[in-house]
Amino acid sequence: MSITRFATRLNSFASSPHTFWPDLKGKPSMLQMAERASKAQGLTDLDLNFPDHVSDDPQAVARQISDLGLSINGLAMRYYTNPAFKLGAFTNPDKVVRREAIDLTKRGIDAARAMGSNLMTIWLGQDGFDYNFQVDYAQVWDWEVEGIREVAEHDPDCLISIEYKPNEPRSYSLLPDAATTLLAIHEAGSPNLGVTLDFAHVLYADEQPAFVASLIHRRSRLLGVHLNDGYAKRDDGLMVGAVHLRATLELLRQIRRDGYDGALYFDTFPDASGLDPVAECEVNIATVRRLMAAADRLDHDNRLGNAIERQDAVASQAIVNEALLASA
Amino acid sequence: MSITRFATRLNSFASSPHTFWPDLKGKPSMLQMAERASKAQGLTDLDLNFPDHVSDDPQAVARQISDLGLSINGLAMRYYTNPAFKLGAFTNPDKVVRREAIDLTKRGIDAARAMGSNLMTIWLGQDGFDYNFQVDYAQVWDWEVEGIREVAEHDPDCLISIEYKPNEPRSYSLLPDAATTLLAIHEAGSPNLGVTLDFAHVLYADEQPAFVASLIHRRSRLLGVHLNDGYAKRDDGLMVGAVHLRATLELLRQIRRDGYDGALYFDTFPDASGLDPVAECEVNIATVRRLMAAADRLDHDNRLGNAIERQDAVASQAIVNEALLASA
Amino acid sequence: MSITRFATRLNSFASSPHTFWPDLKGKPSMLQMAERASKAQGLTDLDLNFPDHVSDDPQAVARQISDLGLSINGLAMRYYTNPAFKLGAFTNPDKVVRREAIDLTKRGIDAARAMGSNLMTIWLGQDGFDYNFQVDYAQVWDWEVEGIREVAEHDPDCLISIEYKPNEPRSYSLLPDAATTLLAIHEAGSPNLGVTLDFAHVLYADEQPAFVASLIHRRSRLLGVHLNDGYAKRDDGLMVGAVHLRATLELLRQIRRDGYDGALYFDTFPDASGLDPVAECEVNIATVRRLMAAADRLDHDNRLGNAIERQDAVASQAIVNEALLASA
Amino acid sequence: MSITRFATRLNSFASSPHTFWPDLKGKPSMLQMAERASKAQGLTDLDLNFPDHVSDDPQAVARQISDLGLSINGLAMRYYTNPAFKLGAFTNPDKVVRREAIDLTKRGIDAARAMGSNLMTIWLGQDGFDYNFQVDYAQVWDWEVEGIREVAEHDPDCLISIEYKPNEPRSYSLLPDAATTLLAIHEAGSPNLGVTLDFAHVLYADEQPAFVASLIHRRSRLLGVHLNDGYAKRDDGLMVGAVHLRATLELLRQIRRDGYDGALYFDTFPDASGLDPVAECEVNIATVRRLMAAADRLDHDNRLGNAIERQDAVASQAIVNEALLASA
Repeated sequence: MSITRFATRLNSFASSPHTFWPDLKGKPSMLQMAERASKAQGLTDLDLNFPDHVSDDPQAVARQISDLGLSINGLAMRYYTNPAFKLGAFTNPDKVVRREAIDLTKRGIDAARAMGSNLMTIWLGQDGFDYNFQVDYAQVWDWEVEGIREVAEHDPDCLISIEYKPNEPRSYSLLPDAATTLLAIHEAGSPNLGVTLDFAHVLYADEQPAFVASLIHRRSRLLGVHLNDGYAKRDDGLMVGAVHLRATLELLRQIRRDGYDGALYFDTFPDASGLDPVAECEVNIATVRRLMAAADRLDHDNRLGNAIERQDAVASQAIVNEALLASA
Repeated sequence: MSITRFATRLNSFASSPHTFWPDLKGKPSMLQMAERASKAQGLTDLDLNFPDHVSDDPQAVARQISDLGLSINGLAMRYYTNPAFKLGAFTNPDKVVRREAIDLTKRGIDAARAMGSNLMTIWLGQDGFDYNFQVDYAQVWDWEVEGIREVAEHDPDCLISIEYKPNEPRSYSLLPDAATTLLAIHEAGSPNLGVTLDFAHVLYADEQPAFVASLIHRRSRLLGVHLNDGYAKRDDGLMVGAVHLRATLELLRQIRRDGYDGALYFDTFPDASGLDPVAECEVNIATVRRLMAAADRLDHDNRLGNAIERQDAVASQAIVNEALLASA
Repeated sequence: MSITRFATRLNSFASSPHTFWPDLKGKPSMLQMAERASKAQGLTDLDLNFPDHVSDDPQAVARQISDLGLSINGLAMRYYTNPAFKLGAFTNPDKVVRREAIDLTKRGIDAARAMGSNLMTIWLGQDGFDYNFQVDYAQVWDWEVEGIREVAEHDPDCLISIEYKPNEPRSYSLLPDAATTLLAIHEAGSPNLGVTLDFAHVLYADEQPAFVASLIHRRSRLLGVHLNDGYAKRDDGLMVGAVHLRATLELLRQIRRDGYDGALYFDTFPDASGLDPVAECEVNIATVRRLMAAADRLDHDNRLGNAIERQDAVASQAIVNEALLASA
Repeated sequence: MSITRFATRLNSFASSPHTFWPDLKGKPSMLQMAERASKAQGLTDLDLNFPDHVSDDPQAVARQISDLGLSINGLAMRYYTNPAFKLGAFTNPDKVVRREAIDLTKRGIDAARAMGSNLMTIWLGQDGFDYNFQVDYAQVWDWEVEGIREVAEHDPDCLISIEYKPNEPRSYSLLPDAATTLLAIHEAGSPNLGVTLDFAHVLYADEQPAFVASLIHRRSRLLGVHLNDGYAKRDDGLMVGAVHLRATLELLRQIRRDGYDGALYFDTFPDASGLDPVAECEVNIATVRRLMAAADRLDHDNRLGNAIERQDAVASQAIVNEALLASA
């Protein structure tokens, strides 16, 4: 098994639109952004948001992406269409809104399948609370698990990957971290469920990426890996390796050993400050290639396993420095 | 069921020793601290650390505490006796050290039972890692779960409560939060396992106390509640309600509704800055009594349930203010 | 001197628009939001964003607000009109963009004055950096100070208040906290400069509100107070006293003693989850009134000063509980 | 100017004492730790704590260190001798204790000078507060500034460097970050004052190391640099470059350009988990040498300056990757 596919966030390619589309009025279309993304050397895949990026004719969208030389890695749900979702999707106090969120997700799964993908990523960022005394915790947990189960059972051949994040937009998410997500997946019980790790969300949740990857591998399965970086205080969406080079390297080594062979998806925000998204994507790919090469070197270095067996962080630091860093 | 017992941290009573023992040389003994603690009006129980606070004759210690008019709520393991524990107790790389940690815990459980208690609290703060590439995550997780299972099976009539904490002394703990602890308990599988919530650890882990109490009640059981407060950035050990009055009130309401009838244990650090520990304990009890009275008022207010059903935080804020705060 | 005015964030009143304007298409206008705000009992003032909320005829806007029974507390700059501001306003790498930001600010100051206000609040959230090796720190600091000085000197009769925030939208702000802001003000040297404290920003910066209020009073002057609350990890925009009742009370006591007599402005985000903004505003006012009454009681309690003189937190906790909380 | 000296924390060398001193009972002496430290290849200097590491005969201590082939970089004050210091050193509520702290510092300065050093580092970690309503902020700030001024004026030929830290042992420090420290230094006004940057404290304060180094260079002077690393949530004391390789490289580049030519001091805690302190120190030196070599390469790369002029983080990321990382 090996990692050969690089995917990226489509909305990044709306960054500084005038530099790419001098005459554009308003925002670029999905297809315009995809076309710009296709300029990034080494990029193989896109993830599309549902419903935003998918028209009424998913197969046509899939063909358009394919014509650009890119594959569709999967779809990702976004619960923005009804303003009532702000107070919750699967856990909204209003039964009608909960139903709408679940039905929208099912339509998204159908669209993914129609596009030839079998991966739907669900980030339930609206399901949470801001205040003490705002929700009945047992009740909203029930709703969350039931909603996850219902959408998972909608199409057993589609993998449903839960992406967690501790905070934002809600002050507290119901699924803030890997372990809580694994509890919810265990309760839901559907075999097509798994987890998507987003590197910056993991840092934000004060977790170590390789540790939670190992835990997910043990208790469920890792269905998606979002690479990016940040300062562990918020979801910064920085370039890969901008801050945590060593933790990124350790994560890549861990998921390769655990057999992950899906795409590496760059969930970065070059558009937040107007950076060039094509160059940014290419730098991300180049950084990952450097880290993969370092991981290869470590795979052939018996000393690392020995150091880890002794939990000797001094020895492993020296060994990893040799593999990762340029020499003095 | 109801909450009627107040316990406290014994080492707090070493604070500013000269004010209580003008002639004392060195540190006060366990019994001297217990005697000082017994001056706190309203205090009913103590938790003792094992092995620090328990001599070779646990029954004699139990009698001494009883003679002071206090009960023993339970024991709490401390892995400080062997400096090698700094690198891990149940997850130490050295098999001999792992065995020593497990055997020490069993002796602690035996001591607890000999003292008439059936509660042992285990905080595995040394089990974790500081560096990337320091541990084999799957291996240390196996060891942690096996260790927990072995000590739980040592005496099925003794409740074993796991207290989690995200960081410190290790940069990352293996059991950092409620959900990870629940996964470990699920894997260990022993029916006498449960969880101890420490309010400041919960904040430190970026959790909401009442939410995790509800999750623990659902998936395992709540065996201990440590009240204190802090600023959510470290384990400050402040007085109850010093910062998070509303979250403390919500937690008390939640655990009463879920049937918790154990002791409320004050895990505060008046000794860290030389505060008067007897007065500090009495203020903690008085604060809890105010919060309990507010919880009583909320229990008789239909409006709160209705507001929570609508997830209407504005309405619940006004209702809780009425129950909690003095009027304008 | 006393605090008698309550102001609020105008954009909050776009929350759940269909409940107030059943037939509204699109977003409510500035005037519609102001009209809705005027329904909040006890509200006296509004702050308007420039240029978003101010048309080409500021005096007409001022009349419209006045006709609703509200005063204008001041204007607040927003640097959103040019997408290039995303990379910086006063510290943008492009000289033309820096000039545009400064000139826009001067037009805002002129508008404030035309509307009868002498207070302009400037939040330089875009001035910062996301990455190591992104900016020349000495250079951007120079530009920031020069920009602040130039806009302050534009109209010496208009107070210019700098509002700081540690992160977001940029990963790191150039003016992240009170002390850095005071250094910049000291270098700028203009006598009409001061600082706006936003309670949730203060928490986000890991500061204690009353401490930084005291520092600002010592070294510059406090020109604005934004009340709200949060969990100290991000800018949550919660209702006043939702989390930090004691710190809010301490801040109110501190600023009253230091002579602050400006408005208390509620910088909360009821619109983020669709809460009722009129009720939310009224609950904020009611909470502040409770806290003001508690502060009054503390002002007449000699014991508090004595406890603080001894830095005896146990005694002061008990005294503040009496003034703040309902009895047991 | 150049950086040629490496210093380290002496207490690190108490780590796992039995591996170095099989027959040692109790803790190693200052001289034993110094002897062990002298085994680290490349180490040139030590910092000693006052009064802990300095006997009544400072000159004798200096000779002993010199005989080991090491120099004394400076002394560092520790306020642990009187338990009353827990509530504050220069800001203690008790005038007698404040005087004791100031006089102890003066004796430390005298000892440093007697040992041939002209550098005293002062970390006022005890000066702060844990609770709202615990201190009179204006009063304790006055005391802090007066104390700093008095010890600085004690010997104008001794450099006094203030080391800041945001939290711990107190929940809030009076001097939590670079900017607040610069305000205090400005008020104290003594020309021999400066600042010590501790990398992990800087992260803990949510600062960027190179930014605050630049600010300190502008407004005062950088007198000490403590290298280590951490996860920005606490003072982890990890090996150099364990987490933030890029920020460490940026800091080294910044301080070299600003003319820093003092020692690089490793303030790490190998003793916290029993790591080998000699190997750890050598790995730290090797890591710094790699980073210095990368900084040299960047100094000769015109592209970096151009990228920074445009604030083009994508370009600078690629350039720094080339200088810092091994190739793919």
